[in-house]
Amino acid sequence: MVKVAICGGSGYTGSELLRMLSQHPGVELTAVTSEKSAGKRVTDLFPHLVKFGGLVYEPMEKDRILQKADLFFMALPHAASQEAVNFFYQKGKRVVDLSADFRLSDPVVYEEWYKTSHHYPNTLKKAVYGLPELYRREIKKARLIANPGCYPTSAILALNPALKEGIIDPESIIVDSKSGATGAGRKADVMVSFCEVNEGFKAYGVGVHRHTPEIEQILSAIAGKAIMVDFTPHLVPMDRGIVTTAYARLTQKISTGKVIELYNKKYSKEPYVKVLEEGFYPNAKHVRGSNYCFIGIKVNERTNTLVMISTIDNLVKGASGQAIQNMNIMMGFQETTALEGLALCP
Amino acid sequence: MVKVAICGGSGYTGSELLRMLSQHPGVELTAVTSEKSAGKRVTDLFPHLVKFGGLVYEPMEKDRILQKADLFFMALPHAASQEAVNFFYQKGKRVVDLSADFRLSDPVVYEEWYKTSHHYPNTLKKAVYGLPELYRREIKKARLIANPGCYPTSAILALNPALKEGIIDPESIIVDSKSGATGAGRKADVMVSFCEVNEGFKAYGVGVHRHTPEIEQILSAIAGKAIMVDFTPHLVPMDRGIVTTAYARLTQKISTGKVIELYNKKYSKEPYVKVLEEGFYPNAKHVRGSNYCFIGIKVNERTNTLVMISTIDNLVKGASGQAIQNMNIMMGFQETTALEGLALCP
Amino acid sequence: MVKVAICGGSGYTGSELLRMLSQHPGVELTAVTSEKSAGKRVTDLFPHLVKFGGLVYEPMEKDRILQKADLFFMALPHAASQEAVNFFYQKGKRVVDLSADFRLSDPVVYEEWYKTSHHYPNTLKKAVYGLPELYRREIKKARLIANPGCYPTSAILALNPALKEGIIDPESIIVDSKSGATGAGRKADVMVSFCEVNEGFKAYGVGVHRHTPEIEQILSAIAGKAIMVDFTPHLVPMDRGIVTTAYARLTQKISTGKVIELYNKKYSKEPYVKVLEEGFYPNAKHVRGSNYCFIGIKVNERTNTLVMISTIDNLVKGASGQAIQNMNIMMGFQETTALEGLALCP
Amino acid sequence: MVKVAICGGSGYTGSELLRMLSQHPGVELTAVTSEKSAGKRVTDLFPHLVKFGGLVYEPMEKDRILQKADLFFMALPHAASQEAVNFFYQKGKRVVDLSADFRLSDPVVYEEWYKTSHHYPNTLKKAVYGLPELYRREIKKARLIANPGCYPTSAILALNPALKEGIIDPESIIVDSKSGATGAGRKADVMVSFCEVNEGFKAYGVGVHRHTPEIEQILSAIAGKAIMVDFTPHLVPMDRGIVTTAYARLTQKISTGKVIELYNKKYSKEPYVKVLEEGFYPNAKHVRGSNYCFIGIKVNERTNTLVMISTIDNLVKGASGQAIQNMNIMMGFQETTALEGLALCP
Repeated sequence: MVKVAICGGSGYTGSELLRMLSQHPGVELTAVTSEKSAGKRVTDLFPHLVKFGGLVYEPMEKDRILQKADLFFMALPHAASQEAVNFFYQKGKRVVDLSADFRLSDPVVYEEWYKTSHHYPNTLKKAVYGLPELYRREIKKARLIANPGCYPTSAILALNPALKEGIIDPESIIVDSKSGATGAGRKADVMVSFCEVNEGFKAYGVGVHRHTPEIEQILSAIAGKAIMVDFTPHLVPMDRGIVTTAYARLTQKISTGKVIELYNKKYSKEPYVKVLEEGFYPNAKHVRGSNYCFIGIKVNERTNTLVMISTIDNLVKGASGQAIQNMNIMMGFQETTALEGLALCP
Repeated sequence: MVKVAICGGSGYTGSELLRMLSQHPGVELTAVTSEKSAGKRVTDLFPHLVKFGGLVYEPMEKDRILQKADLFFMALPHAASQEAVNFFYQKGKRVVDLSADFRLSDPVVYEEWYKTSHHYPNTLKKAVYGLPELYRREIKKARLIANPGCYPTSAILALNPALKEGIIDPESIIVDSKSGATGAGRKADVMVSFCEVNEGFKAYGVGVHRHTPEIEQILSAIAGKAIMVDFTPHLVPMDRGIVTTAYARLTQKISTGKVIELYNKKYSKEPYVKVLEEGFYPNAKHVRGSNYCFIGIKVNERTNTLVMISTIDNLVKGASGQAIQNMNIMMGFQETTALEGLALCP
Repeated sequence: MVKVAICGGSGYTGSELLRMLSQHPGVELTAVTSEKSAGKRVTDLFPHLVKFGGLVYEPMEKDRILQKADLFFMALPHAASQEAVNFFYQKGKRVVDLSADFRLSDPVVYEEWYKTSHHYPNTLKKAVYGLPELYRREIKKARLIANPGCYPTSAILALNPALKEGIIDPESIIVDSKSGATGAGRKADVMVSFCEVNEGFKAYGVGVHRHTPEIEQILSAIAGKAIMVDFTPHLVPMDRGIVTTAYARLTQKISTGKVIELYNKKYSKEPYVKVLEEGFYPNAKHVRGSNYCFIGIKVNERTNTLVMISTIDNLVKGASGQAIQNMNIMMGFQETTALEGLALCP
Repeated sequence: MVKVAICGGSGYTGSELLRMLSQHPGVELTAVTSEKSAGKRVTDLFPHLVKFGGLVYEPMEKDRILQKADLFFMALPHAASQEAVNFFYQKGKRVVDLSADFRLSDPVVYEEWYKTSHHYPNTLKKAVYGLPELYRREIKKARLIANPGCYPTSAILALNPALKEGIIDPESIIVDSKSGATGAGRKADVMVSFCEVNEGFKAYGVGVHRHTPEIEQILSAIAGKAIMVDFTPHLVPMDRGIVTTAYARLTQKISTGKVIELYNKKYSKEPYVKVLEEGFYPNAKHVRGSNYCFIGIKVNERTNTLVMISTIDNLVKGASGQAIQNMNIMMGFQETTALEGLALCP
């Protein structure tokens, strides 16, 4: 049994970790922390987590909590995560960090987009970007996982095979993403109140969203050269799910069927990526609550453009599910343990 | 391994049986039928059921399908179910019928509400009403389970302890229920189209809904006398979930706390009923996708009325989850097998 | 031209007043106040109010604002409204108060439910309850209107004819109401965030909601005797709309058709009440954005119960529309001015 | 008084024409047709249209209906519209056609995308594309208006100034659009049922949607050269509204502020186009039920891309509202008559 603690368990990524870990036979949850909710029961905030009836949030007193677990899921806000991650890592523990603090390998880029410095560049060097479809081998040997952002997961999985195979122009990529409201987190803010979000649809953070450099870093690694992308996130009036519609100019004549073949070749052994047949496009509803990523492909021959559409559940494959997948890989569990559930649909 | 077939698997109760059975280690699914969708893949209708990639709907040729399974989940429309249930039952098979055809013990009442005769009164006598919280012992020994309706499940679980203990006047019961749109089934009908249901709320079937005699039959059995209730269903713009608000006059002075105690006494050992603390009321969102029923209680001392509020997922505890619970009890599996999942929330 | 000011214009009732008054040819809007948003433009909070591009919130400096208008719509929070209403009223102005502060004629009852004293009992005596269908004559002569609450409007309009005619037992009334999320107001609160409300349904304030004494006061006046009711509000995942399902025991045998006749007799000349034909029940979506109240009626002969179902838009007939209707009556405008819009549906 | 008939009044564009025309002082509605619903009352389908209590659908017997009106709104399905439009037009009537049949000036392109021939090429030559912001002068003199599609309206208004001024490369345009469910029309189809659409998001018709050639035709006219675009529509779980996010490479260095200036110059006199300030992006909810188009602009300096985001209500500015705007222009009414209503929000 691996002893596991969740630091920052009062948000939606925290509650999803709890929901899924409740099905994990190899894990013992020993602590869940929250500063604001310390002393409250988990079920006070999340009544649906009935199996955790006795579990109470505690403050993250690092020295005390250090003793309690072998592996730490860090679901703290960006910037706040840095120090705690470094602490547990330096004490020899395994860490899966769901914040953005260890995703950008260049501290300068981090500072530019997150408006705060990175104080642990040496620890940062040890972090592995936790996207199993690209870095499974590295994850296996890692002790510190930078769990990918939700938008980057959807964008990278959509673009990876086409970019890798060189069939698209890396300078022409546009990433138009749409996310459900859990992407904004659990908070008291008029802007995320029901009456403002429901029956509405809008873009936000146009050209300036912090997931942009993360997408660019991994796509650049795939392309073998530094590239930049246009990234526009939108807010969809639904709880969960991201759909990313990515566009890029084709570098060659190729049919939709051929591109799908190419995608299948890349992903056929992946337990959580499913490439759809020609003419089918993914619906966020079909992956809701599951760890799957569905991908649909279309070559627009009129404009010589490749359209790549992916969907994930932002809280699962886009956060907590992928974190567990990373833990499973790191700890030698079957990769799909606790992630077997099919989507809840409708 | 128990061999299981699903007859009528192209609706939402069918897809939910598949979703949950995919997690059942003791069950082998051998066939799923649909007349309209025969020849289609299950994933053509339900792309989220990725684990059933190879499964194809077949027509319900009874003689052929009889050989394939030991236990049959019948998810056929009311009236259409009668003959098939009788057939499999008479051939010695176990049957869990999700239709209403074997719920009403009196064929005359059945005919009155369902406008069709019951042709198998002898088989009807063998049917056990599959509400484990009331009839677990009978279910254990049964071969034919009449799986309860969604509204009746929510109403009966809400009223049972108060009625049983005699603290409410059985003549004064009002059942005001609210259901998500999956309650109407999967169908092509303007009335269930998104634009008609979304941002709307309405009552329907006021005083004439077919679940009325089912509620009355079980409540009468609990009360030990024939009673009638007012039952009003409403349509909520959400996918899943029923909330039932039941009212009855108290026969004695009693506090909310005392009534909650009484409910806890009745339900404390139940794996899927949770009585909330004083001042808390159940939210459909907290049981979505799970087999739980949450119950909240309030004594209105000003009016001498007991308010009992319950919530279930109409497709799980109100249909397919309860069907699996019944199968587990009948077949000697652990009652919670394949039903361990916590609610998906948000 | 009547000069009009809105005090407390940064909530949804404020924005709805603005939306509808923009269509009123006899009204000049001279000021809109907000403490928190003073200095901001109305369109900063409500971008849809494009016609008010130049309008800026000002603090409610009473002496200054007094000069600006002849009639004041007061959309301040309960308790905060008292003093301001009294001030403008005592200075000879006309006031339509959308808060609850002048609805309960007995200051003792007010204090009991609102946990604060009423400091202006003399002004309170001058207030007329602004439900035109019951008190049109009094409204015409009034200078101070207590604009009814949303739930009370729906409940009273549903029950009024049956209660007045004595066909129901006044001791047996149950009011089960369901409201969209705008009922909670515009605020930063996790409990009204999209992800908590969407795909959920719950009861709240069971037996203790502050609209209870308001409903009871008016129903008592209609019945000619003091009565109490069971009132349970619920939260529906939609922006607008209330559906109230009211139940009462019949005192006589009577058919649904006869009761509808009786309702039509009472309401046929009302511009904003529509009684539906037998077998039809109102849908909140059909009155959304309009000032209408739709009512459906069903006699349950099996249980001898009358079911009365009404729907209104809580922000229009349940608040700002009714406030304008009251202003129109008071000021001698055509009653329907600025309220001609049909519902926005779908 | 202009006598007006609506042909094909049982869909959502029909009901929206009725809703808005009920506020038009210069129009007398003399007939509304529907084949399937002939004999039914308008309020049987649309209970919210209470002011049309007496209005009954009639079959479209052309000769009879010809006598009834001076101007015909044609809301028939594509292909079915051709003949009727030609008939009324050739008889000297004014016609506003909401179908696509007279939008594409080249019958060959029409046939290619709509898979049916155009039988009235001469009448087609008389049609004016009814986008007032581009063709107001032509509309004034026209007798036949091809009312623009919903997606094209949003895309063209978003791109027009930038394309006209030559600041973007016409070969690089990507149009990523998102629409509410009314875009699919009022129909009985599992695919538009609540439970399939709600809590989902998906692309459809990728690269093959029929609005593509319409967008290309008008953009080509603006650019002064034949251009093609990538167009991807998506389905949003909301009733109304389109948000279009358009991308194009800049041909020059220019700031966001400068582009906004340029847009304001083009649109400042338009009653229904509003360009937002820098840093603000349009939300579909802010135009719901109104005839407005809101536009937000962002120059992404890192990628040298212009992002243009527009929103409209697909049933109003994207269909029936624009049809009335066109009628107003043609008939010499004030252009905003019956279109004064602000958006219903929330």
